[in-house]
Amino acid sequence: MKVDTLIKCATIATPLGSTPKKGREMGDIQIIENGYIAIDDGIIVEVAEGESSRIEAKNTINAEGKVVTPGLVDPHTHLVHAGSRENEMALKLHGMTYLEILKNGGGILSTVKATRSASDGAIISQILKSLRRMLKYGTTTAEVKSGYGLNTEQELRLLRLIHNLDSLQPIDIVPTFMGAHAVPEEYMGDKDAYVHLVVEDMLPKVAEEGLARYCDVFCEEGVFDINDSKYILLRARELGLGLKIHADEINPMGGAELAAELKAVSADHLLASTDEGLMKMKEADVIAVLLPVTSFSLEEKFARARDMIEMGMAVALATDYNPGSSPTESMQLVMNMAAIKLKMTPEEILTAATLNAACAIGMGELIGSIEEGKAGDVVIFDAPNLNYIPYHLGVNLSNTVIKRGSIVYKAQE
Amino acid sequence: MKVDTLIKCATIATPLGSTPKKGREMGDIQIIENGYIAIDDGIIVEVAEGESSRIEAKNTINAEGKVVTPGLVDPHTHLVHAGSRENEMALKLHGMTYLEILKNGGGILSTVKATRSASDGAIISQILKSLRRMLKYGTTTAEVKSGYGLNTEQELRLLRLIHNLDSLQPIDIVPTFMGAHAVPEEYMGDKDAYVHLVVEDMLPKVAEEGLARYCDVFCEEGVFDINDSKYILLRARELGLGLKIHADEINPMGGAELAAELKAVSADHLLASTDEGLMKMKEADVIAVLLPVTSFSLEEKFARARDMIEMGMAVALATDYNPGSSPTESMQLVMNMAAIKLKMTPEEILTAATLNAACAIGMGELIGSIEEGKAGDVVIFDAPNLNYIPYHLGVNLSNTVIKRGSIVYKAQE
Ligand SMILES: [Zn+2]
Ligand SMILES: [Zn+2]
Repeated sequence: MKVDTLIKCATIATPLGSTPKKGREMGDIQIIENGYIAIDDGIIVEVAEGESSRIEAKNTINAEGKVVTPGLVDPHTHLVHAGSRENEMALKLHGMTYLEILKNGGGILSTVKATRSASDGAIISQILKSLRRMLKYGTTTAEVKSGYGLNTEQELRLLRLIHNLDSLQPIDIVPTFMGAHAVPEEYMGDKDAYVHLVVEDMLPKVAEEGLARYCDVFCEEGVFDINDSKYILLRARELGLGLKIHADEINPMGGAELAAELKAVSADHLLASTDEGLMKMKEADVIAVLLPVTSFSLEEKFARARDMIEMGMAVALATDYNPGSSPTESMQLVMNMAAIKLKMTPEEILTAATLNAACAIGMGELIGSIEEGKAGDVVIFDAPNLNYIPYHLGVNLSNTVIKRGSIVYKAQE
Repeated sequence: MKVDTLIKCATIATPLGSTPKKGREMGDIQIIENGYIAIDDGIIVEVAEGESSRIEAKNTINAEGKVVTPGLVDPHTHLVHAGSRENEMALKLHGMTYLEILKNGGGILSTVKATRSASDGAIISQILKSLRRMLKYGTTTAEVKSGYGLNTEQELRLLRLIHNLDSLQPIDIVPTFMGAHAVPEEYMGDKDAYVHLVVEDMLPKVAEEGLARYCDVFCEEGVFDINDSKYILLRARELGLGLKIHADEINPMGGAELAAELKAVSADHLLASTDEGLMKMKEADVIAVLLPVTSFSLEEKFARARDMIEMGMAVALATDYNPGSSPTESMQLVMNMAAIKLKMTPEEILTAATLNAACAIGMGELIGSIEEGKAGDVVIFDAPNLNYIPYHLGVNLSNTVIKRGSIVYKAQE
């Protein structure tokens, strides 16, 4: 057999299938010691144990002593924005109060301001830098949300920029419309009018232009309540978009229940969700996307991943990359925190960062596992076994990142 | 002026001086916007603001838009060992109890076993890999402790291996003897005999061969008590070694007080130290070396860095790299955690990771700041300002690492 790329002598660790793994099944992964992966025309054409000498490849990669996993999938990011908020963090550390920081131009609305006034080129070059980092750390597919525009023109602009990204770099991007990320300054005190704008103006235009695969809402006290969220998401569903929801991050708002009722693909955060809400999500096959780095950097509690898994839910992991509460591109750091703080096993973590994450953005048929017929997206980790990946902290363990069969990152020695 | 290396157009952020900065003084750093650094024969010969056209350099590095800091100094690592303990972490996550894990060969003594039976070559190649990672993440000087040998022959072997490292790679190594890291299996139930071995056999040989600059002791309930620690450290002092102590990590054992009494250069961990102990350390000019990644990964509390700084103490930061509780080479991750969990300001963090860390291993005269006469060890960070370094989480921000004026790491685009 002739193929483009052959990875041989590898320890291959992968979940199997195209649908989310639920509960304890998340731990049922396949590990092939001394295996090989043949990729042709961007697609995996063979995965097996043992000798690969029968296969003739244009490029052969010897992965002896290394672990090969599916390309990591980051199903929740707020990549598209301008600026950063390191000065806000510094002011806080210097003892400034939250209100003083807001007066000094901090908070989410400061990023909205920076984003609105930034040129397309400036935004694109900032995102490209982040995407390049994500790729180095093993992410080969990512969801990206709008939500720092907060008016029709700007939200559409950001979604169009997200679309351009696909052709500018190797990571596949799944776009999500999140006009309901915050109430912009112009609508302070008139949230309902802003919700109306999202529903009557933004959403139809987003759908008409085919700019987003999902619609997301920040359902939280003081932001958008359950009624707002339901109103927005129902309209999005009518218009053919899939649904996501930032649910129960701080207060048990009923976000998990709403996600179940509307059969959203995922509900994300879930720090304060009740058992009832989680059980409803499980029954409705809604994936729980957990964001441990956000909990860490905001010093919030952590999501109850173990309870969720024991309950039979499908759990995925994501960075939540954003300039306020999670300025990290590294899914590897997320995996470290999933072990230390969420008490997930290495097998569960792998499933959550690949197959379940892929399913959380509707990509389970194409990516998320190393199997014949799936895309040739894999990461070769400089790690002696799977356990080592969540264990070894805070440095980049990826040795080679392969996207659709091509090497897109190779670490220096 | 003709020099080897010129770094120009840089934002230079550095503490100043050769002695530890104490308390609020840790925040008094120098920031030069649009500055340059001239390095000749490995030594910084000029640092100033503005135009550098007068200087003729063999290598010129344009650091526009980047931040240059002193090379990071990691003053507390247990690098020299064989093996890793990812399987122990995995067993714990799979629900195995601590005692079951010990029975399955976990814990510090499993690393001792692996180290004793590993060849010199295997140990060296593992350490070189870690040192290479440290260098990429900006560390240019590191302390390395023995302590996984736990008999005279093995402890001497490990210290000799540490000495060999200096010539094999660019990071300068400061060796510490830590025979009193744990009581080895052969001496279970007869700790006093082991302490006697450390004092009467190991220490004189270490001193005679000039194998260590410091002696360290793990002073903790169930390991070495205050009397053991004092006995060992007094003998080390007699023999001309500097003193360090793992103090009050879990219980307020009086380790801080002992460090003050013996005028140790540093006391490390300090999670459980009393105000009285800390005050005594301050009065005796003992540096507090804090290890936030260890607290994070063991889910311990964090050291009271803010109290220490307000009290006027000198604080330094370190990775505590070891296979059990802190498998990370990244001082950048330590700096992230110092902001988020220790509430140190970016200026204090910089001082703690450079000048104060250098002083904690007796190197304040030569390294730890960017000043004329100091070694040409600097890191060029891909960061728009100093605040960005502790803020942007979990990825490597170092763009170029320079050791004694030579580029030893350059990031890929
Ligand atoms: Zn989010
Ligand atoms: Zn230690």
